[in-house]
Amino acid sequence: MNTKTLLHAGPPIEYHEMTGPPMQGSCVGAALFEGWADNEADARRMLEAGEVQFVPCHHVHAVGPMGGITSGNMAVLVVRNKLDDTVAYCTMNEGIGKVLRFGAFSEEVVDRLHWMADSLGPTIAKALKQTEDGINLNVIVSKAIAMGDEFHQRNIAGSLLILKELVPLITTLDMDNNEKQRVIKFLADTDQFFLNVMMATSKAIVDYARKIQEGTVVTTMTRNGKNFGIRIAGMGDEWFTAPVNKPRGLYFTGYTEEDGNPPDIGDSAITETVGVGAIVTVAAPAVTRFVGSGGGYDDALAITDRQNEIFITNNPNWPIPNWNFKGAPCGIDARKVVATGIAPLINTGIAHRIAGLGQIGAGTAEAPVACFEKPLWLTPRS
Amino acid sequence: MNTKTLLHAGPPIEYHEMTGPPMQGSCVGAALFEGWADNEADARRMLEAGEVQFVPCHHVHAVGPMGGITSGNMAVLVVRNKLDDTVAYCTMNEGIGKVLRFGAFSEEVVDRLHWMADSLGPTIAKALKQTEDGINLNVIVSKAIAMGDEFHQRNIAGSLLILKELVPLITTLDMDNNEKQRVIKFLADTDQFFLNVMMATSKAIVDYARKIQEGTVVTTMTRNGKNFGIRIAGMGDEWFTAPVNKPRGLYFTGYTEEDGNPPDIGDSAITETVGVGAIVTVAAPAVTRFVGSGGGYDDALAITDRQNEIFITNNPNWPIPNWNFKGAPCGIDARKVVATGIAPLINTGIAHRIAGLGQIGAGTAEAPVACFEKPLWLTPRS
Repeated sequence: MNTKTLLHAGPPIEYHEMTGPPMQGSCVGAALFEGWADNEADARRMLEAGEVQFVPCHHVHAVGPMGGITSGNMAVLVVRNKLDDTVAYCTMNEGIGKVLRFGAFSEEVVDRLHWMADSLGPTIAKALKQTEDGINLNVIVSKAIAMGDEFHQRNIAGSLLILKELVPLITTLDMDNNEKQRVIKFLADTDQFFLNVMMATSKAIVDYARKIQEGTVVTTMTRNGKNFGIRIAGMGDEWFTAPVNKPRGLYFTGYTEEDGNPPDIGDSAITETVGVGAIVTVAAPAVTRFVGSGGGYDDALAITDRQNEIFITNNPNWPIPNWNFKGAPCGIDARKVVATGIAPLINTGIAHRIAGLGQIGAGTAEAPVACFEKPLWLTPRS
Repeated sequence: MNTKTLLHAGPPIEYHEMTGPPMQGSCVGAALFEGWADNEADARRMLEAGEVQFVPCHHVHAVGPMGGITSGNMAVLVVRNKLDDTVAYCTMNEGIGKVLRFGAFSEEVVDRLHWMADSLGPTIAKALKQTEDGINLNVIVSKAIAMGDEFHQRNIAGSLLILKELVPLITTLDMDNNEKQRVIKFLADTDQFFLNVMMATSKAIVDYARKIQEGTVVTTMTRNGKNFGIRIAGMGDEWFTAPVNKPRGLYFTGYTEEDGNPPDIGDSAITETVGVGAIVTVAAPAVTRFVGSGGGYDDALAITDRQNEIFITNNPNWPIPNWNFKGAPCGIDARKVVATGIAPLINTGIAHRIAGLGQIGAGTAEAPVACFEKPLWLTPRS
């Protein structure tokens, strides 16, 4: 294919509508990474001239964090839903600091993407080939939800559990020892590595659910920085959108709300779509202080109890000890959102408003209820 | 030194008073490991003839799980309390199944002890020599207590966090790759590895506290299978003992109470002595189901709230998100135990009554209040 294509987070959007960082900045980084341009100015000219086709990640079984910008040669994680071999993809977590997903595109960022595509990804692939069937992620999620992860802001346990699975496999590989060391160090240092694994896992769950084309279960929630978009089981591929809300939260030391790029953005709300993230705040009370949504256990419990009202059931595979072993909520019903006025709560990162400076805080944002009202005008009421 | 010496768990005890498994069985294993005997019969004859001198671990800055049997050539962990370089020791965790600490002494058990002494221990030592100052365990405990560990029954998070620190260091070592692989696999598979680290950490805390020789803070709680023994800050090295209680708990599939070796045993109550273990059940509600002490979060909270009444303060370095970020209890006051009648609660493993068959369950046991009454008759009341 001759056409240059980039995947992006959220419902469909064109380049000129995209927010600077993280989305336009990420496009520049992806263009540099793919060798479509040698410098920022050329990359921006090419993007502004419309030479790049944009496709939502969600249209091709993928998801991407923050800007979600994904190009053809980036390393991706592959998660298979064994119910019917539905497969989902997500780029790999780059770590913290200056990273593509927050709109950074310096040489450091592009070099890291090359290393991930040329070394990190292939090494993990070789490690996994030694297993019969990869890593059972349902088990990892089940363990990590009992260890304080909610899988959006906090993935420390999941990342360690993946490290525990991968490291013995990587150790046996016949490869350069310095490179092996770099891969293992990266995995050990990247506390949010599991976020992207969980995003692909969640996508593999909803893309299976999307095959049941009836009812009002929400099968996608995502944001492109301008609009919040949802899809509904019974309405197939149709997007229902409304302007995104601005996250409220806490800023890292040295930053204030004025430095932030307020719009809520990213496919990472796929975690809340499958009932984790801010939905299961009770599993991760430590997060309430990080995102500014509360002070302690009781606040965390209140958030989850309230969010649970808009779900149709609970997932017994993911029991939460802090919640008397009740399973994570499963299946947002758009009708319940509209009837109760309870908007799904999303945990989110906050990017600096200047592209290239990365993450400067974290918070929560509510999904706009208007998204959930729209499909209900079109479906028969039950 | 020509004399054969073994360290054991709990207050002083002679060989003939020791419970079969895990303690006498462990002695046989240690004798085989040290090459003092070639077979079980010879080892038992030697032990029964009084050829081995027994010393409590606690008398030599050490602690040992279950039987606590420790001989001169076993690999030990070394933890340094940086306040004044108080140093404490504990053998390394052997994993699960047939292990010395539960009284097993088969060839598999003895071979593993040799491998730990000859390979695992030296490899970890070489890895740690690459760091400036070892691993900061206060930080690990602080992280893991927010991840569902209570550090006696549950050490999954602590073990993963140690793996994360050690593995990048081990990867760089110039050593046989199969051996490197075996060490890394062992560390990845051993979910209770951190129990022994936490025991040595706790010992380094109480041996510092024991230098303050006034007041009624409990500086040791331990069991030798016959007696529960405590020591008190103001009473120096004197032991106050009472018969151990029997643990109540749950048995692994296929076992019942009749298979158990009921007496409570081991130095692992050092964890409760420093305010974790069963004391912080609220941090690890998943444990309540494993040890049979309750059903859910509310039971876990009730246990910790009640235990907190016998402590003098809370440790702000170990905040518990599930407990509204209150720090783990710190410093049991013997006077409070006697005044309230609240016995310190201890999480514990249950060994098979036949030496060599290992762990068959887990439960809780209460410290006998009589231990705490004895020193108070000897000290001036405040």
